[in-house]
Amino acid sequence: MADVVEYAPQAHQLAYTFGGRQPVLRVEPGTVMRIHTEDCFGGAVRTMGDLPSQVCRFPELNPVSGPFYVAGAEPGDTLALHLVSLTPARDWGVSSTFPHFGALTSTAQTATLQPPLEERVWRYDIDTAAGTVRYTARRSDYTVDLPLAPMLGTIGVAPAAGETRMTIVPDLHGGNMDTPELRAGTTLYLPVNVPGALFAVGDGHARQGDGEACGVAVETAMTVVLIPEVIKGIATPAPRLESDTALMCVGSARPLEDAYRTSHTGLVRWTTELTGLETLDAYQLVSQAGRSPVGNVCDPNYTILAVIDKAYLHGAAAYGGAHDRLRALAAHHDPGRG
Amino acid sequence: MADVVEYAPQAHQLAYTFGGRQPVLRVEPGTVMRIHTEDCFGGAVRTMGDLPSQVCRFPELNPVSGPFYVAGAEPGDTLALHLVSLTPARDWGVSSTFPHFGALTSTAQTATLQPPLEERVWRYDIDTAAGTVRYTARRSDYTVDLPLAPMLGTIGVAPAAGETRMTIVPDLHGGNMDTPELRAGTTLYLPVNVPGALFAVGDGHARQGDGEACGVAVETAMTVVLIPEVIKGIATPAPRLESDTALMCVGSARPLEDAYRTSHTGLVRWTTELTGLETLDAYQLVSQAGRSPVGNVCDPNYTILAVIDKAYLHGAAAYGGAHDRLRALAAHHDPGRG
Amino acid sequence: MADVVEYAPQAHQLAYTFGGRQPVLRVEPGTVMRIHTEDCFGGAVRTMGDLPSQVCRFPELNPVSGPFYVAGAEPGDTLALHLVSLTPARDWGVSSTFPHFGALTSTAQTATLQPPLEERVWRYDIDTAAGTVRYTARRSDYTVDLPLAPMLGTIGVAPAAGETRMTIVPDLHGGNMDTPELRAGTTLYLPVNVPGALFAVGDGHARQGDGEACGVAVETAMTVVLIPEVIKGIATPAPRLESDTALMCVGSARPLEDAYRTSHTGLVRWTTELTGLETLDAYQLVSQAGRSPVGNVCDPNYTILAVIDKAYLHGAAAYGGAHDRLRALAAHHDPGRG
Amino acid sequence: MADVVEYAPQAHQLAYTFGGRQPVLRVEPGTVMRIHTEDCFGGAVRTMGDLPSQVCRFPELNPVSGPFYVAGAEPGDTLALHLVSLTPARDWGVSSTFPHFGALTSTAQTATLQPPLEERVWRYDIDTAAGTVRYTARRSDYTVDLPLAPMLGTIGVAPAAGETRMTIVPDLHGGNMDTPELRAGTTLYLPVNVPGALFAVGDGHARQGDGEACGVAVETAMTVVLIPEVIKGIATPAPRLESDTALMCVGSARPLEDAYRTSHTGLVRWTTELTGLETLDAYQLVSQAGRSPVGNVCDPNYTILAVIDKAYLHGAAAYGGAHDRLRALAAHHDPGRG
Repeated sequence: MADVVEYAPQAHQLAYTFGGRQPVLRVEPGTVMRIHTEDCFGGAVRTMGDLPSQVCRFPELNPVSGPFYVAGAEPGDTLALHLVSLTPARDWGVSSTFPHFGALTSTAQTATLQPPLEERVWRYDIDTAAGTVRYTARRSDYTVDLPLAPMLGTIGVAPAAGETRMTIVPDLHGGNMDTPELRAGTTLYLPVNVPGALFAVGDGHARQGDGEACGVAVETAMTVVLIPEVIKGIATPAPRLESDTALMCVGSARPLEDAYRTSHTGLVRWTTELTGLETLDAYQLVSQAGRSPVGNVCDPNYTILAVIDKAYLHGAAAYGGAHDRLRALAAHHDPGRG
Repeated sequence: MADVVEYAPQAHQLAYTFGGRQPVLRVEPGTVMRIHTEDCFGGAVRTMGDLPSQVCRFPELNPVSGPFYVAGAEPGDTLALHLVSLTPARDWGVSSTFPHFGALTSTAQTATLQPPLEERVWRYDIDTAAGTVRYTARRSDYTVDLPLAPMLGTIGVAPAAGETRMTIVPDLHGGNMDTPELRAGTTLYLPVNVPGALFAVGDGHARQGDGEACGVAVETAMTVVLIPEVIKGIATPAPRLESDTALMCVGSARPLEDAYRTSHTGLVRWTTELTGLETLDAYQLVSQAGRSPVGNVCDPNYTILAVIDKAYLHGAAAYGGAHDRLRALAAHHDPGRG
Repeated sequence: MADVVEYAPQAHQLAYTFGGRQPVLRVEPGTVMRIHTEDCFGGAVRTMGDLPSQVCRFPELNPVSGPFYVAGAEPGDTLALHLVSLTPARDWGVSSTFPHFGALTSTAQTATLQPPLEERVWRYDIDTAAGTVRYTARRSDYTVDLPLAPMLGTIGVAPAAGETRMTIVPDLHGGNMDTPELRAGTTLYLPVNVPGALFAVGDGHARQGDGEACGVAVETAMTVVLIPEVIKGIATPAPRLESDTALMCVGSARPLEDAYRTSHTGLVRWTTELTGLETLDAYQLVSQAGRSPVGNVCDPNYTILAVIDKAYLHGAAAYGGAHDRLRALAAHHDPGRG
Repeated sequence: MADVVEYAPQAHQLAYTFGGRQPVLRVEPGTVMRIHTEDCFGGAVRTMGDLPSQVCRFPELNPVSGPFYVAGAEPGDTLALHLVSLTPARDWGVSSTFPHFGALTSTAQTATLQPPLEERVWRYDIDTAAGTVRYTARRSDYTVDLPLAPMLGTIGVAPAAGETRMTIVPDLHGGNMDTPELRAGTTLYLPVNVPGALFAVGDGHARQGDGEACGVAVETAMTVVLIPEVIKGIATPAPRLESDTALMCVGSARPLEDAYRTSHTGLVRWTTELTGLETLDAYQLVSQAGRSPVGNVCDPNYTILAVIDKAYLHGAAAYGGAHDRLRALAAHHDPGRG
């Protein structure tokens, strides 16, 4: 079984940007890493009385652990990050409304003269054994158990062109994509823009509805086990995901149809590369076979995915079979998974 | 077993608008209707040489069968349409690109100076027994079988405010919503804007990817069995769907985030009505439990749904249990289903 | 001096749709018409206590006078409407906020869970002699005189494809474009979709800011003098305007950039036709010389214009010099103008 | 007459980001600065054969001169930059199409499967004495003189929250706003996010149409004379402009209606502060009196302004009369202006 590199940041080590920071650790490709991540509030929202706008201080929101320098990663390469496991590190999570943030309120961009919705916190019980998170209403005694479905809201690398972006932003470098597809068993492919790639992770969700409507999922600290790998000489234009059964392109843009357009043109072109299908033939196949799960409709860019089942691609292997290799490596690391 | 009212339009009886037409038939609520629908090209695209822009004549696109007058339906009521079965009426379907139509091309609204993509037709084999539709590439010998998943692209009623809309448009009256959730076993709730509601149906798809990226699904003539019911005295503000397991609100708007906003505010309000949850409590529940399947990203309005599993609503019954009643009626009609 | 055909509708004759109605009058091309129009509230909002949502009854909003049948107009032709004069018919106008309508509030499409802004009416004094409208605050004693700048919010024809649209909607048939460029001295070109064109006019504004931010201008009854002309055999794809100095294309769409795109592709193509410039050369010229006044950012479609000064087009004459001919005709009719 | 601080960067000193760089110069508030700026292509496009995608190297586009450290500027203050004069530094300028960039083409965000428009360069003669720029078509012998109207496309400060943004991006820190209102005689107000503010300027345009439709104005090197001032203790949420006659709020966002919403809510709130008008009263005044010139519809965020004439604000003085003071200082510096 592989050695595991462990990283647990202290509060002052949390990062709030992608780019603009020195690495906290240097790792070799293929290293199994166990990374502890704080929740999007930095752990400051613990009770229903902890209103985020009062206990958090902008821009210290959505902290990530990292960045990590991956040896050998050079601009033009692809960084593969295989998520081995995501385990809530607490038996509770929180969600909230937040003034002028979310899909069903006016916001800083979709600005209106209306006052914000009431700021309110909901606390969830997380039962890892039962596989549930328990919703409890604030204005009545309604409760209901929802399936536990751990995911990471935020994974990214240092952006291109010398940019530094707040961790709240999803874009070509990854970032706050907030898609439930970023779950255990998935491999994320990101562009390498700087030597070492400088990836960082955070914003664990015990679960999330499509679009993260109120802007805040069931937020919780998370123990993340992942394996980075470098795919040399192959560039990746925008974030991609691979599961055992599907290939996915991530689009982050505004308006939301542009996220659809970027993710789907990406998937059409990837399909073309993997199958030899001519472009319009691939467009047609994606049009009938594609799925398009919504990520977020609340962040500075909205995120939507374009997904195709590998079964429809005649066994084409992306990135030379990187996902299968990483899957096997993960199983070797933890035979109970994989 | 109930008597079945059958309707099969002749070519000259096809309708191209919602509103502005006399009913072709008057039916009592609870009637089992078997309706034959043409495909979106009026059956004119049969081979790969039949380019839609040449063989079809605007605005004679996307024909519907109807409208049907449902006895007793008055403005302010809700029309429930339970889809009992959807059966492709041919063993083939077609799809195509169409000049300046679709999500991955500039269009009449998203207008650019670029020439259109090549217009091209794909023909699919539909194997109802095997439950497949066969994709065949045009520029290579690539084929792949996709699951048959029949749905109706277009169902609607006469619009409010005396409007008449082309059948290509999805809006508050239903119309060309192009969502795969409109499948057999589903009940659609629509507002009644005029006496008799005047509903019509068409645009059968053997299957469709999320968003109908190229603007055209696997189009086929369809035999539709459905049951209309009138829910007196309850208004429905926008189209809603109910399956055995879920409740859904349909949003059709541009940009796509506005479709998300309208469908999700609709679902939050409906959840509030059904559960007694206070509004922000319902917002929170939908934010964590909601799903948001994409309908279309190509029509004059884009369509997205907000969905919640009934399991999370403590058994609340929408419209007084209309779906279950219709489900039972359908099973009675055809014991092999239900 | 030409005879003038006068039309003043009674309340029950006001129209609330384009399309779907019989003409109220048949006129010959070249006829000078004096048409009386009600304000967007049908005259029901006269004091600050008359809240529109209470004194108006949806969908009886934004009434127009007409439709008028123009002899000889056939589908494929262009209808030219030259605005000779616009004179407020009252010495007062009103504006208001309206629940969930306007640019700086959530709306039916940009739906949020926030309550609407307060509904409030402002009454303006119109001083035609001084050329002013007087703004008076409601919550303080602030007043200020703004220039009187009469315009028509709504002019349109029966839509194509058998559609009927509420008068509140701007689209290819014209409608509620709400652009200050629709002022006296301007010629509007519209497509003819049905025999007689069936044009109608209404929604006079004593003045309006760019975008009509709160959704309601300084609304007033208006006396409109105009001259219709038919331009045979020339189709117009979308509304266009011509003043003594400029040519303009109107784009109405959502999101607002699509209105920009449609108006500007329209102007590039029109420039190409008028000057012989190759397409990209015309694109370049419009990019440096074009202006883009905002019409409305509150109606079901948003409206923006693309404008180029005729001085930059080497004296090209649109529609065979129709504007100059109508200008001369108007001057003949009323030598004090022109 | 005041001393003038001069700055002319060498090629290797040009900056391509706001933030992330050390200042090139420290200046006292009130200093008259003469700054030389390169054009958006770094001067590399000089002939019609110099295609930007070939002679420029991403991300070295849109260079700015600076950043400059303004003594005494601290986070929470406002930086005022008064533009004294803008003088083209060459007697020629260039424009071009650029692959998948501009308003009338699909782009990286509004992604389609269509090939890009042809890349083409246009060269303009700038005649400062005559006050003209001469357009010359590439595919015919058409030429026309347009008014010289110098402006700066890009002015900004280091962003908040530790971000570093490419100079091509307009946002709350200013940046590539591309509005013709940034002309001589105007004062720009920007938030101070870091000590010294670290402002930089570039991207001179000999003129530009509204929206910069093709994505590239008449680009030229520019000699910029400006005066920085620090307004202590007053925060500015987003860029604002002041001319002798008007106040303006800048909104940069996607979709374009969000730029309208942010600029207009900003102007309503500013009006409220300056006049004591209650919020809805100010909304009403802006709705009738406001103008909304379009900046750009091509950059990563689109830009639109909300403008109100000071004449309608009863002589309210913004920022304690900063613009008038700077105007006087500029006149003192150069009595021929002012």
